[in-house]
Amino acid sequence: MLRSAIRPNTVRVQTRYISNLKGFRVETDGFGEIKVPANKYWGAQTERSFENFKIGGSRERMPEAVVRAFGVLKKCAAIVNTELGGLDPATSKLIQQAADEVATGKLNDHFPLVVFQTGSGTQSNMNANEVISNRAIELKGGVLGSKEIHPNNHCNMAQSSNDTFPTVMHIAAVTQISQHLLPELTHLRDALAAKSAEFEHIVKIGRTHLQDATPLTLGQEFSGYVQQLTNGIERIERAQQNLRFLAQGGTAVGTGLNTKNGWAERIAAEISKETGLAFKTAPNKFEALAAHDAIVEASGALNTVACSLFKIAQDIRYLGSGPRCGYGELSLPENEPGSSIMPGKVNPTQNEAMTQVCVQVMGNNAAVTFAGASGQFELNVFKPVLISNLLSSVQLLGDASRSFRVHCVEGIKANEAKISELLHRSLMLVTALNPKIGYDAATKVAKNAHKKGITLKESALELGVLTEKEFDEWVVPEKMLGPSS
Amino acid sequence: MLRSAIRPNTVRVQTRYISNLKGFRVETDGFGEIKVPANKYWGAQTERSFENFKIGGSRERMPEAVVRAFGVLKKCAAIVNTELGGLDPATSKLIQQAADEVATGKLNDHFPLVVFQTGSGTQSNMNANEVISNRAIELKGGVLGSKEIHPNNHCNMAQSSNDTFPTVMHIAAVTQISQHLLPELTHLRDALAAKSAEFEHIVKIGRTHLQDATPLTLGQEFSGYVQQLTNGIERIERAQQNLRFLAQGGTAVGTGLNTKNGWAERIAAEISKETGLAFKTAPNKFEALAAHDAIVEASGALNTVACSLFKIAQDIRYLGSGPRCGYGELSLPENEPGSSIMPGKVNPTQNEAMTQVCVQVMGNNAAVTFAGASGQFELNVFKPVLISNLLSSVQLLGDASRSFRVHCVEGIKANEAKISELLHRSLMLVTALNPKIGYDAATKVAKNAHKKGITLKESALELGVLTEKEFDEWVVPEKMLGPSS
Amino acid sequence: MLRSAIRPNTVRVQTRYISNLKGFRVETDGFGEIKVPANKYWGAQTERSFENFKIGGSRERMPEAVVRAFGVLKKCAAIVNTELGGLDPATSKLIQQAADEVATGKLNDHFPLVVFQTGSGTQSNMNANEVISNRAIELKGGVLGSKEIHPNNHCNMAQSSNDTFPTVMHIAAVTQISQHLLPELTHLRDALAAKSAEFEHIVKIGRTHLQDATPLTLGQEFSGYVQQLTNGIERIERAQQNLRFLAQGGTAVGTGLNTKNGWAERIAAEISKETGLAFKTAPNKFEALAAHDAIVEASGALNTVACSLFKIAQDIRYLGSGPRCGYGELSLPENEPGSSIMPGKVNPTQNEAMTQVCVQVMGNNAAVTFAGASGQFELNVFKPVLISNLLSSVQLLGDASRSFRVHCVEGIKANEAKISELLHRSLMLVTALNPKIGYDAATKVAKNAHKKGITLKESALELGVLTEKEFDEWVVPEKMLGPSS
Amino acid sequence: MLRSAIRPNTVRVQTRYISNLKGFRVETDGFGEIKVPANKYWGAQTERSFENFKIGGSRERMPEAVVRAFGVLKKCAAIVNTELGGLDPATSKLIQQAADEVATGKLNDHFPLVVFQTGSGTQSNMNANEVISNRAIELKGGVLGSKEIHPNNHCNMAQSSNDTFPTVMHIAAVTQISQHLLPELTHLRDALAAKSAEFEHIVKIGRTHLQDATPLTLGQEFSGYVQQLTNGIERIERAQQNLRFLAQGGTAVGTGLNTKNGWAERIAAEISKETGLAFKTAPNKFEALAAHDAIVEASGALNTVACSLFKIAQDIRYLGSGPRCGYGELSLPENEPGSSIMPGKVNPTQNEAMTQVCVQVMGNNAAVTFAGASGQFELNVFKPVLISNLLSSVQLLGDASRSFRVHCVEGIKANEAKISELLHRSLMLVTALNPKIGYDAATKVAKNAHKKGITLKESALELGVLTEKEFDEWVVPEKMLGPSS
Repeated sequence: MLRSAIRPNTVRVQTRYISNLKGFRVETDGFGEIKVPANKYWGAQTERSFENFKIGGSRERMPEAVVRAFGVLKKCAAIVNTELGGLDPATSKLIQQAADEVATGKLNDHFPLVVFQTGSGTQSNMNANEVISNRAIELKGGVLGSKEIHPNNHCNMAQSSNDTFPTVMHIAAVTQISQHLLPELTHLRDALAAKSAEFEHIVKIGRTHLQDATPLTLGQEFSGYVQQLTNGIERIERAQQNLRFLAQGGTAVGTGLNTKNGWAERIAAEISKETGLAFKTAPNKFEALAAHDAIVEASGALNTVACSLFKIAQDIRYLGSGPRCGYGELSLPENEPGSSIMPGKVNPTQNEAMTQVCVQVMGNNAAVTFAGASGQFELNVFKPVLISNLLSSVQLLGDASRSFRVHCVEGIKANEAKISELLHRSLMLVTALNPKIGYDAATKVAKNAHKKGITLKESALELGVLTEKEFDEWVVPEKMLGPSS
Repeated sequence: MLRSAIRPNTVRVQTRYISNLKGFRVETDGFGEIKVPANKYWGAQTERSFENFKIGGSRERMPEAVVRAFGVLKKCAAIVNTELGGLDPATSKLIQQAADEVATGKLNDHFPLVVFQTGSGTQSNMNANEVISNRAIELKGGVLGSKEIHPNNHCNMAQSSNDTFPTVMHIAAVTQISQHLLPELTHLRDALAAKSAEFEHIVKIGRTHLQDATPLTLGQEFSGYVQQLTNGIERIERAQQNLRFLAQGGTAVGTGLNTKNGWAERIAAEISKETGLAFKTAPNKFEALAAHDAIVEASGALNTVACSLFKIAQDIRYLGSGPRCGYGELSLPENEPGSSIMPGKVNPTQNEAMTQVCVQVMGNNAAVTFAGASGQFELNVFKPVLISNLLSSVQLLGDASRSFRVHCVEGIKANEAKISELLHRSLMLVTALNPKIGYDAATKVAKNAHKKGITLKESALELGVLTEKEFDEWVVPEKMLGPSS
Repeated sequence: MLRSAIRPNTVRVQTRYISNLKGFRVETDGFGEIKVPANKYWGAQTERSFENFKIGGSRERMPEAVVRAFGVLKKCAAIVNTELGGLDPATSKLIQQAADEVATGKLNDHFPLVVFQTGSGTQSNMNANEVISNRAIELKGGVLGSKEIHPNNHCNMAQSSNDTFPTVMHIAAVTQISQHLLPELTHLRDALAAKSAEFEHIVKIGRTHLQDATPLTLGQEFSGYVQQLTNGIERIERAQQNLRFLAQGGTAVGTGLNTKNGWAERIAAEISKETGLAFKTAPNKFEALAAHDAIVEASGALNTVACSLFKIAQDIRYLGSGPRCGYGELSLPENEPGSSIMPGKVNPTQNEAMTQVCVQVMGNNAAVTFAGASGQFELNVFKPVLISNLLSSVQLLGDASRSFRVHCVEGIKANEAKISELLHRSLMLVTALNPKIGYDAATKVAKNAHKKGITLKESALELGVLTEKEFDEWVVPEKMLGPSS
Repeated sequence: MLRSAIRPNTVRVQTRYISNLKGFRVETDGFGEIKVPANKYWGAQTERSFENFKIGGSRERMPEAVVRAFGVLKKCAAIVNTELGGLDPATSKLIQQAADEVATGKLNDHFPLVVFQTGSGTQSNMNANEVISNRAIELKGGVLGSKEIHPNNHCNMAQSSNDTFPTVMHIAAVTQISQHLLPELTHLRDALAAKSAEFEHIVKIGRTHLQDATPLTLGQEFSGYVQQLTNGIERIERAQQNLRFLAQGGTAVGTGLNTKNGWAERIAAEISKETGLAFKTAPNKFEALAAHDAIVEASGALNTVACSLFKIAQDIRYLGSGPRCGYGELSLPENEPGSSIMPGKVNPTQNEAMTQVCVQVMGNNAAVTFAGASGQFELNVFKPVLISNLLSSVQLLGDASRSFRVHCVEGIKANEAKISELLHRSLMLVTALNPKIGYDAATKVAKNAHKKGITLKESALELGVLTEKEFDEWVVPEKMLGPSS
């Protein structure tokens, strides 16, 4: 919305404009005139895209993180252009102010375009240029659409969509990863670590191939999840390295035509300063425009984390299965009624949400892979769909990590009675006998017990392979939790 | 929004309620009391889900087609319940009326839940039950939250989330496929067929391995695209067959507990009548709840169509590449400026949007595959993510087919001069000589021409393998367009 | 190996040849001379490919089914060429005889090429032409490499790799699907159906969200698996329809240049006759060369079946988990020792093999999707990788279906005592009370029982919501297995 | 084959054995007796697996790299067991000698099992134990099958399949990546870098959206490919870090039961010494058995590299398209005849092989993802399919990198005449005028030239926006290759 209250002159002009056009004003581009809504800052190219790409509806709007990253970039570009490129300081100031409003999300409503547009994101870049242009003109008291602060010549100065869009892809990705995903993953890891500590004294039966195996502690079991997420956090941090390289300064094809020497380095420095995140200029701009391997790499890291989280959430729901006819070793928090027909039923819904998120991330990764491979010559024209899928994965994993932690992990309780009952019923404690009586004799003990439905001890004594005292000394779950000294 | 104007009594009660609670009213479920916004119809279970699943934000709202399908289902269920299950006609009428409002989309704002919730979609089923319950109560003049028309006992009568959610998945999918996707694919196919007819006289060089090959007409080339889409339409129609089977009547685990004999068949008939689309009761309800193979199958069909459209859009953009340094055989419509830095540039943006849609559909298919394989015992708990991805693919392919047709295909023009120039420059017309002089001699003619940069004819005469008259009679592109008689 | 015993003249020549060249003979093509192993029938182009594509080793050899389909095709082509195209009957006979040897697999050792070669499969087509040429020459008593029966002019007469390779892709796929996969899937389905019948009397607890739910019979549970496979078989049959269309007759770019009118129809008829499988000529050859949507479609059907089988094998291994600390409702056959360290352990290894096969099929489908989308102009040059993945999926699913049936399904036993114990322990029998006392009261009964660890009956009586007689009459698992009359 | 010549005593025993059993000998395990081929070292468990898992045939044999890694591991284990675990030195020596033969590939024929077996790889671990046991017994002069050197008690001492198989997965992966893939990728990168240098003086038209864009040098274009591979090599190196952690020492469930303190660290050190590659013991063995995130991560890195290579190979084949009707900027080496019907045709076959490899790697990655997510409790039972896909990707990318380099990249030539012709025909040189006359005026110049089919200069002069002198000074492709000073 135009903030008319504080800009009386503009408002007057603007109002007249609107009344003439019944809610529209005329904007122009190389294709001629076109009407745009009078209460929006966007210009002709945005309007054309809006009309030409009715694909996917509001669900497929360009992610907000991209829009806001454009604000960051355009502000920094104005600063550097004044410094290196002769942009007059007054115009620069106005552009910076308008761009700042984009960066803070105030002008989100002025970015109507969808992901499925031109594959370079040119139309979203022009959307940013046009909104900033008109807003800056307005700040100055000029006429919207007059281009006195020009979307191309000023707002896009020394830039091309082909370098700006990759740049905002990376700014948006690093921002969301470092400010949302990594903190949430870390919190979830820590919550699992707390449970691992809480459960460290609880000896339980292990399960391999879903079949009863040798014992471990519930704390050890959870420690595996902790390790997975510790590794996952490191994986994402490693994958972020290449996202910190910015294409800006490559302009149209990577050569940097129409920039000045030093522009690329300066803009990266300025963006780092503005965001508080470390960015560097990409060592090769041809690669940075024509390929998006860094996005594929990052998506691969998220895909790996999705595998981890799927396993963790899957395990926990099986361990919590029951309440009376499943594994029943864990009690998960009861957050809401589970069934519209079965009274009193409670389900592992957070685990279900998490595993659904994980398959979505895997699907997103497949889309990113195909799109990432399909660059052509000097440009990959799958940029919007690439960043849309990556940011979707980042947000979903971050959100689900939080939800899963708060509504599930932190409230998990161990059913110690059930765990103990299962442990002592198992036949796989026989493994402790391998070093004592050999694998073949131990096999006979286990098979005999299984066949006759008796305990291990009963079986061992019946077969006469050891004495009761030996059995009691050797088969002790608590002694089976680690290497022997 | 509560439509208070026409229901004065309700409004009074409701208003009092609101003032007491400062914009909230209290709803209850098996977990106790909870505040919900006073101006929303939803109840306790919806509210709990809304608070417990903050995942993905508004982008991940349960698709509208699912919400509306719930309206259809709940209306039909009320009819059948009165007929078979003793639901009193007055209550039934009110439920039908409220459900109808859901079906027409009027109450969309009362469905705030996201995809990443419980994997059975129970919470969205309860959302429908609660909204219909309260709206029906309101219609009757009762107190919201009073459950005098009960969300479970009345609105969910003879149903379980485990059969309703699969049912609305299929209703939504068939509706969107038959009313949006298939018509748009057919229009696109027809537009390509019209181009194929328009171009049937234009002889051009063929390209295999991207290398010059024997000639064909531009109309023949486009006829391949037409065939792909004709097949694609049939594929989707075949895949729809299994979507037309409904799980309704299986209730909690597939047995149909708490339904009456004949319920399953009647509800399928009623839904068919209501939607005008043919549905049947699923032959085996255990399969219909525990697996979603029909969704995976349908997604596979869409994936195949995505491959077709990717190829078509890719070909057309390469054939339109240039304007001066590419293949340049086609001119694509110029819809908007193509570059923020390169003046006058126009790009194949519709093709880019289409190919981006295709990779998204492929990604969605990967998510559907994994989710579809992951059912457990009597239930697959990836239902929301399954239908979300399928409906995304349906909408994107439908929307993109329309956009690509209107803004690209219908405006394609052949550059006949360029096409002719390339045709006559090619060496692969030599293939016509195989039956005359043999493959080995023909090879020599072609290689000699290539090496010396001369024409085929010059080469053939230089090598003395035929006479000029023979060459002119045998090597005629127009005679190379089909089998010989 | 050259079968010298029956061809003395040839042998003499051949031997001399070999001695001259120390185990090699010289073959020629348009690129000149090249040495090939004297004891192989292949010629120059095969040899070049063999040397130029050292990718993947023997694991990546062109699948045998493709090689043998080439035998079928070349034999039929010789017949039709004599009929329509002037191929002299004597030469034709020799080609047919040699081709027949390829078709029966006798000459497999003469097909050394790998999948990762030219994307049209030209080199494998030439491999077939060269082997048949030399073998036919040998049968005639001629000199290998003399080309008196010419690989191109005779063996490839009226053909192009661009139509032969798609043709053998379809012949191989239909053959393997109809002769291997569908029979094995049917046997597996039947074995599951037999188990469903065997288990129809066993009432067990249902599980939704992995949580205890209302009861069903073990037979009903297995009937869901049966339905999945019945549907799967139909899916594959539907997907086969488009595989039955043959590209043959399109030659280089789809026009049919260098064939005669009627050739395409005749060769399809001849191949049908030869294979006993119904094939038809593709309605549009441009589509048949440039796209492989039929392969993508078929792979999608296999992917759906993989989802079914994953679910079935996964369920069964969980139901068989234990022996003492898992669900333990089923006993799976014990086929081999399960652990190298845990004596007596037996694992659900067939289920593990099956689920591993399923993920491989899903991976293959992803490869097929990307390859299928990537055709260019008149040709898709991912043909070998497409058919390799499809045939891998066909074989793996067929083999695993057999192995899983024979070594697992047929030997599954129900642990009725354990099943009964779990059934009667469950709280979800409470659902039977919904129509009697309402969902809310029933919820209280269940929750009270859960909280206090008492039975449902105890809880109901304690809460005074019904009498003991009512409980005993209403809560009867055997009455909860279907709709009420 | 038993190398009988050098071991007369053994041979005598062995021969008698064979004659008694008609080519078979009897082996035993916990399941009883079973016949195995007399000329194979494997024992009962291998034989059972061989018979129970007829899935996929020889194509699906456990990869040789895994078999050989078992040799490495078992040798090292014998050393450490003597040191820490009381294995007598004589037996240890024999095991080491036999294991060494496995490690060098001499005994490959004694490893007949396929990938699709038990998901823990237990049967391949036992295959290794049995072969080493019998071979060691043979070395000692004992009777095969006598177990005097026991497959479990000695060869598998302090080990479980659950830690050995993950260990050999990592040994095999690191070995193949570091000894095959990384060197080949580096060679390919260097070959592209050499071309980049060779082409640094050749100015050409850039292409974005496939449309003519501003110029760059062919060397710059290739430098993007170089950067992609440089990054790819680093990605793989980073992903290797987690592959260097070994599960060995976790035994059955991760606790290390039946090992001694220090065993895990010692075996990692010994394996490092044996292989010359740096390995460390995994910090958490529960994670190392139950998850295979490190494999998923590595596969993700390979997937990223596949995207890079797809793009590079795709670009190069388009740039080489023609010879007369395509882009024609590059000449690719002519390695073999390209068509069985079109004489003289040469195709970019190496690019086709490479892009086929890339889609296979993407498919493999999808399989790895699903398998990697599907671990259960203490074990992931998709181990063989995980390592099979990863090693397939490693080998294919390595092989294809070599083939593509040797047969394509090193022989690429630039068609300077064609490149120059296209460059000077382009309209996008107009971009140089932006800073001089503004974007809008420059647009008019370009559009006017496009419409009238005239040159940029003609258009500019016609429109009177600048002088001829200005044009000649400003529009100079050679000045458009970088930022201005």
